[in-house]
Amino acid sequence: MSKAITSRSQDYSQWYNDLVLKGGLADYSAVRGCMVIKPYGFALWENMRDELDRMFKETGHQNAYFPLFVPKSLFEAEEKNAEGFAKECAVVTHYRLKSDPQNKGKLIVDPEAKLEEELVVRPTSEAIIWNTYKDWIQSYRDLPILVNQWANVVRWEMRTRLFLRTAEFLWQEGHTAHATAQEAVEETRKMLDVYATFVEEYMALPVIRGVKTPSERFAGAEDTYCIEALMQDGKALQAGTSHFLGQNFAKAFDVKFLSKENKQEYVWATSWGVSTRLIGALVMAHSDDDGLILPPKIAPLQVVIVPIFKGEEQKARVDEKALQLVKELKALGISVKYDDNDNNRPGWKFAEYELKGVPVRLALGVRDLEAGLVEVARRDTKEKATIALDGVVAHVHGLLDAIQENLYQRAKSYQQDNITPAENWDDFVRLLDEKGGFIAAHWDGTAETEEAIKEQTKATIRCIPLDNKQEEGKCILTGKPSKERVLFARAY
Amino acid sequence: MSKAITSRSQDYSQWYNDLVLKGGLADYSAVRGCMVIKPYGFALWENMRDELDRMFKETGHQNAYFPLFVPKSLFEAEEKNAEGFAKECAVVTHYRLKSDPQNKGKLIVDPEAKLEEELVVRPTSEAIIWNTYKDWIQSYRDLPILVNQWANVVRWEMRTRLFLRTAEFLWQEGHTAHATAQEAVEETRKMLDVYATFVEEYMALPVIRGVKTPSERFAGAEDTYCIEALMQDGKALQAGTSHFLGQNFAKAFDVKFLSKENKQEYVWATSWGVSTRLIGALVMAHSDDDGLILPPKIAPLQVVIVPIFKGEEQKARVDEKALQLVKELKALGISVKYDDNDNNRPGWKFAEYELKGVPVRLALGVRDLEAGLVEVARRDTKEKATIALDGVVAHVHGLLDAIQENLYQRAKSYQQDNITPAENWDDFVRLLDEKGGFIAAHWDGTAETEEAIKEQTKATIRCIPLDNKQEEGKCILTGKPSKERVLFARAY
Repeated sequence: MSKAITSRSQDYSQWYNDLVLKGGLADYSAVRGCMVIKPYGFALWENMRDELDRMFKETGHQNAYFPLFVPKSLFEAEEKNAEGFAKECAVVTHYRLKSDPQNKGKLIVDPEAKLEEELVVRPTSEAIIWNTYKDWIQSYRDLPILVNQWANVVRWEMRTRLFLRTAEFLWQEGHTAHATAQEAVEETRKMLDVYATFVEEYMALPVIRGVKTPSERFAGAEDTYCIEALMQDGKALQAGTSHFLGQNFAKAFDVKFLSKENKQEYVWATSWGVSTRLIGALVMAHSDDDGLILPPKIAPLQVVIVPIFKGEEQKARVDEKALQLVKELKALGISVKYDDNDNNRPGWKFAEYELKGVPVRLALGVRDLEAGLVEVARRDTKEKATIALDGVVAHVHGLLDAIQENLYQRAKSYQQDNITPAENWDDFVRLLDEKGGFIAAHWDGTAETEEAIKEQTKATIRCIPLDNKQEEGKCILTGKPSKERVLFARAY
Repeated sequence: MSKAITSRSQDYSQWYNDLVLKGGLADYSAVRGCMVIKPYGFALWENMRDELDRMFKETGHQNAYFPLFVPKSLFEAEEKNAEGFAKECAVVTHYRLKSDPQNKGKLIVDPEAKLEEELVVRPTSEAIIWNTYKDWIQSYRDLPILVNQWANVVRWEMRTRLFLRTAEFLWQEGHTAHATAQEAVEETRKMLDVYATFVEEYMALPVIRGVKTPSERFAGAEDTYCIEALMQDGKALQAGTSHFLGQNFAKAFDVKFLSKENKQEYVWATSWGVSTRLIGALVMAHSDDDGLILPPKIAPLQVVIVPIFKGEEQKARVDEKALQLVKELKALGISVKYDDNDNNRPGWKFAEYELKGVPVRLALGVRDLEAGLVEVARRDTKEKATIALDGVVAHVHGLLDAIQENLYQRAKSYQQDNITPAENWDDFVRLLDEKGGFIAAHWDGTAETEEAIKEQTKATIRCIPLDNKQEEGKCILTGKPSKERVLFARAY
């Protein structure tokens, strides 16, 4: 009956898959590389999405919706962007199926329904959006445009992992248009801060804010800012990116505006996105060998109440108190479930809700009830306490905050303990292999060295942290001079 | 400066396009048949979606997400469904582009990246979902499954219209699984009622609840229930459908469960959906020759305040009062905008917000302000009243309710006045041509007669109303006996 979870030490990767599948977040599907997001996983995504959406709107953005398909001729207009995504594009070539004359009941693609121009299923929407902005922008009065879209995108990845890398995924993509480079850069940075705030405050996951090296930039960007998180196995994970696109897309799609000074100028652009990948980060950052651990602020279910009783008479007494608690907790805006399903025993339920990462569990037994007590268990530390029923609602309310804070502090300590300086190549390789995490090391600033380090160690430069300390040093690989350390890591 | 709107009498179809485009709801796109939903239109959709989503959750449904693509072999499994949609499927055949060796900077589909099995872009998701449910359902304890998905779907329609019929559209599709036929039928009817309640209470649009004839059923359904609305040009519009799918999909995908009686049985299914088409219905049902008229309950912006002043000193006085009103209105949960943009004159703003269908406009002038008065204009009747500033917030609050109610009653009267009985063929044809609306007429119950009537008049049977009066009569075309009238109309 119980769902066995592989332990982290045994097989970290399998542990992750077990949590996602057995925790009810997602399933594999019949489509290569695509997943089904199950109701519990989707409720988690809804909570994340709703908070982000609120933050986007508070910073002046509006939502819109652009087509799923990008005609090939538009797709190829911004050359770097096209080159970056061409190898992973799902392409629609036909618009009709017909009965297979050879095979009753089967269908074939109708060769007569070939599209004149192929359609790319969007891997990202800069092309279709900037082609639209051309019609929306004439004068500086039309700027800025601050638009976001919640959408599905498709990137035909060869190696896929649930949430972390799927052929289709859900995301939001902000696409803004500005009159000046400065304003666009400010927007890029502002949205990076929104992402960092969201991930830290809601997902309880500390991140490092930084800028990518040129070779790690988004295809078509002038600068890519990112937030980088650290997983429990010492690997980094890029949790969100915000791009300053310069005038690249404006030039590719000929989007100009009449400035206040009455001159025709190209528009400045940004784009920024986070995706369902964040769920993968969340799972790997906090969970343990018993299952998921979800931060209270985004958990689909914050509290579960499990009754312990024998017979109808006892159940009636427990029910009464439990339903009262449910009402009082809901009045505080806490999501709570009273699980009196009699198909499963309390022990099974305890394990199930631990697997699902519900932050707080109340076990309500008849004997406790008579003594005016209730057992409260917190998922993060697995501590249990028996406390007075009288104050339990306020206690739970405070406990949810404490769990949120504890998860963040725990992850923050882990992150701090795993940013390690390396002074030379041997150090660097040993740290990568033995400790993992972020390695702060000097690099000579060339793409060749970056590539050589990647080839030899599989470590990439995750970012150059914002407000990075300036410090003279020598590149760990080439010994050439360097002015600052950058953060290397093996990454998801 | 003003945006000219074609009048309804001049060209109803162009009037509709003008409202959608100039009202800022949507734009054409570079992809054939696909539209861009602009921020104002999307805000409207968000309000509609959020209410529906709340209603779905209140009736016990959860959201999930299934893949965009359906492998051809799954797509063809339920034959009627496959046959119904095969002719309008966008098909992905390749997963990579490459540089065109003949043409620098251009891309071509890489012939070496042909998929082994083609992928259909979902026109509806029964196939991919029931293929998944197979893994989710073993016993009666796994039932019911009450799942909904908000998604984009693609149907390659030949003639498209903004919102009403687009190649890609946004919708929700509920897909439920049940242990008994009765429970599935109850679900089908329950969701029809949810749709009717939503459309009537939020969109202020009265509907007729009915069941489709066999020829008008969803491909793969045993019964299709629908809500039918009436547009101002006398044409009907199907606003939502709810399908009892019997065991068709369970059989096609071999989805069985162990019943309480310990027997293997096929699962019973429903599906139900509404889409961005509803926005088209909303526009056509209420609006007038000056622009959109949006029901307050779903309007993106409920109140606009326009200042009228000369010079900075006057503006400061108006600003102060206006910002106070904004604050008080927001405290009541009313969405309000103070438009003090000095690029446009008050008269231009009046026309603009009329075009955008904002339910209530306050014009705040210095002279009025000194007299303690404000001009309040309602969009539905275009009535203006000058009322005391003191009570204006409460007045506006009440006025929004009154507008919502008035829109519904106006549409309801129109609907009632346009359900006309026809006793014979000449009557029927004359009514269709001269009056339009729903024609209540006897029909002999055969698909042949239904088809013949459609061919001769372009009128279809919109539905057999629920709880229809039983009444002996003769088919208007064939004279054969009939036991009830059905509703015919020309339709969108």
